[in-house]
Amino acid sequence: MWSRCRARLLPFALLPVFLAASAAFAQSDPLSSWSDGAAKKAIIAFVHDTTDSSSPHYVPPESRIAAFDQDGTTWVEHPIYTQVVFCLDRVPAVVAKHPELRDVEPFKTVLSGDQAAIAKLTKLDLEKIAAATLSGMTVDEFTAEVKRWIATAKDPRWHKPYTQLTYQPMLEVMKYLRTSGYKVYIVTGGGQDFVRAYSMTTYGVSPEQVIGTAGGVTYGYARDSKPILTKDAKLLLNDDNAGKPEGIHLVIGQRPQIAFGNSTGDRQMLEYTSAGDGARLSLLVLHDDAQREYAYGPARGLPDTKVGAFPPSLYDEAKAKGWIVISMKNDWSQIFPFEEMRRAPK
Amino acid sequence: MWSRCRARLLPFALLPVFLAASAAFAQSDPLSSWSDGAAKKAIIAFVHDTTDSSSPHYVPPESRIAAFDQDGTTWVEHPIYTQVVFCLDRVPAVVAKHPELRDVEPFKTVLSGDQAAIAKLTKLDLEKIAAATLSGMTVDEFTAEVKRWIATAKDPRWHKPYTQLTYQPMLEVMKYLRTSGYKVYIVTGGGQDFVRAYSMTTYGVSPEQVIGTAGGVTYGYARDSKPILTKDAKLLLNDDNAGKPEGIHLVIGQRPQIAFGNSTGDRQMLEYTSAGDGARLSLLVLHDDAQREYAYGPARGLPDTKVGAFPPSLYDEAKAKGWIVISMKNDWSQIFPFEEMRRAPK
Repeated sequence: MWSRCRARLLPFALLPVFLAASAAFAQSDPLSSWSDGAAKKAIIAFVHDTTDSSSPHYVPPESRIAAFDQDGTTWVEHPIYTQVVFCLDRVPAVVAKHPELRDVEPFKTVLSGDQAAIAKLTKLDLEKIAAATLSGMTVDEFTAEVKRWIATAKDPRWHKPYTQLTYQPMLEVMKYLRTSGYKVYIVTGGGQDFVRAYSMTTYGVSPEQVIGTAGGVTYGYARDSKPILTKDAKLLLNDDNAGKPEGIHLVIGQRPQIAFGNSTGDRQMLEYTSAGDGARLSLLVLHDDAQREYAYGPARGLPDTKVGAFPPSLYDEAKAKGWIVISMKNDWSQIFPFEEMRRAPK
Repeated sequence: MWSRCRARLLPFALLPVFLAASAAFAQSDPLSSWSDGAAKKAIIAFVHDTTDSSSPHYVPPESRIAAFDQDGTTWVEHPIYTQVVFCLDRVPAVVAKHPELRDVEPFKTVLSGDQAAIAKLTKLDLEKIAAATLSGMTVDEFTAEVKRWIATAKDPRWHKPYTQLTYQPMLEVMKYLRTSGYKVYIVTGGGQDFVRAYSMTTYGVSPEQVIGTAGGVTYGYARDSKPILTKDAKLLLNDDNAGKPEGIHLVIGQRPQIAFGNSTGDRQMLEYTSAGDGARLSLLVLHDDAQREYAYGPARGLPDTKVGAFPPSLYDEAKAKGWIVISMKNDWSQIFPFEEMRRAPK
């Protein structure tokens, strides 16, 4: 009789303890906006495996390198890359300085404001615009210009600054890796100097941990004879596709232990990372949540798209090589930092 | 009367306290092989000024960047750069793989072993040798090759491995800056991949904190379809002279707070560093100790030398701009780690 009573009472007696333990777990869960699926488990197991000094896959702190693509991996890339918007917005200032460009394509189309025509600009057009808008000033002037722009420009769907359209689960992974002794790098096809201007405040990633497409700079002296570095239009590193592992070697000199991407531009970085010795992890973000973000690539059966190309062959390679595919819809209970926390249904 | 007695007794009574404090100071002196001169004082004052959060020149940890030239600044560069010895030593292996080079200059001269003729090789000859000996293998093979070589090759004067010919005072400064939250970079005209192979064990500097002259690498696949990066002969960054601040921008994206150099190849890096806002410090090592190391450049009245060029104009610029000139003879009580500690005369 006593034992039955005890059995009934025990749960209530222990309830405060359970609640406290549960709260402590929620507080200490470094990936609280991830659902308890295979992706979250793989990340946590990888970190334990590489940072526990008794593990056969232990990695010393100086070799703990993590690489994150940016567009489509740590923030929204649709419907158009943020940096392209920046370059288009800068065209009037460039034309004011170089009036001879006013009637020259593609600058003429950009100045017309005709959105349908602007949407049809080719890759070559965009490269011309990038070369004109990302060079010809000192590196300090450029950084100040990006900071001014990014503080006010807004995404057309959420009407929020682009820097608020980062993915909360990825911010958590970056922080989790950092607190586990990893150096967290952004490895982006976007402009190196562009991303560096906001990487610290947006991701907690300092400028030297941003690798991106980089033009040359030229050392010289200003009129007051102060040394200056001027951005020129010469391409030094095209940090996309094979350029990603090549850029990683140039800047880091070590193979990452873990890498995150979402498109064909990340294929070689993911291949290179997972081919290393010991514990390596490559992860691929699948955009399959049209309601909370976007659905494109394999999620919509599209072989390719203008932004964030993700053909079925990349999906197949991920499966064949044991890369982790992250489903935004199923693996992320929260997408953006500004959203209220919504728990995925159990 | 009492007061006189007290005055006489007091020093003796306090002696143990003074001795203890003195011992504690010696133990905690982060620059113990530096004499108590202007250079040591300037370094310590700079670190306090930039890391004390109440200082008007406080620098947040993510912006604490220190840059060190290598050859002649952190280790011996005379009579010939270590990397040139490595390249010359590698010529037989390259010729074995490419027999068509056997009778082609400058390879023929190197193979002859005629030291007088080898000493007369031109800069162009050495560039040809560098291109042939530093490319054509994977980055992993190259790193392994450098590690093998540097473990056994010895300097002709001290008969010790080159990695033991580092300057103890500079190792102390690097450590002192690191423990003060600085990221310590080597910024060398030497090969980036060459220096990275031993930077961690020699200086405590991890590969991503080495900036050097860098060739391109090409991503591809080995026969077993594993991804590989192959070193090619294309020059990406000539990290000397103006190339130093340009390379610093490419890899770090921030201006150093403090920089150390010893020759004209470091001029622009020192200029660029000291021209920044707030507290900045540029320092120049003067080789004026023929007995313990070498004396060359201004110390011997030489306008220029083949290795470690240091014309009077650089010395003048240092004086004019308030850079700190470090006299090896007067500022360093110990030169090499293997030497017994010798205190400079007071």
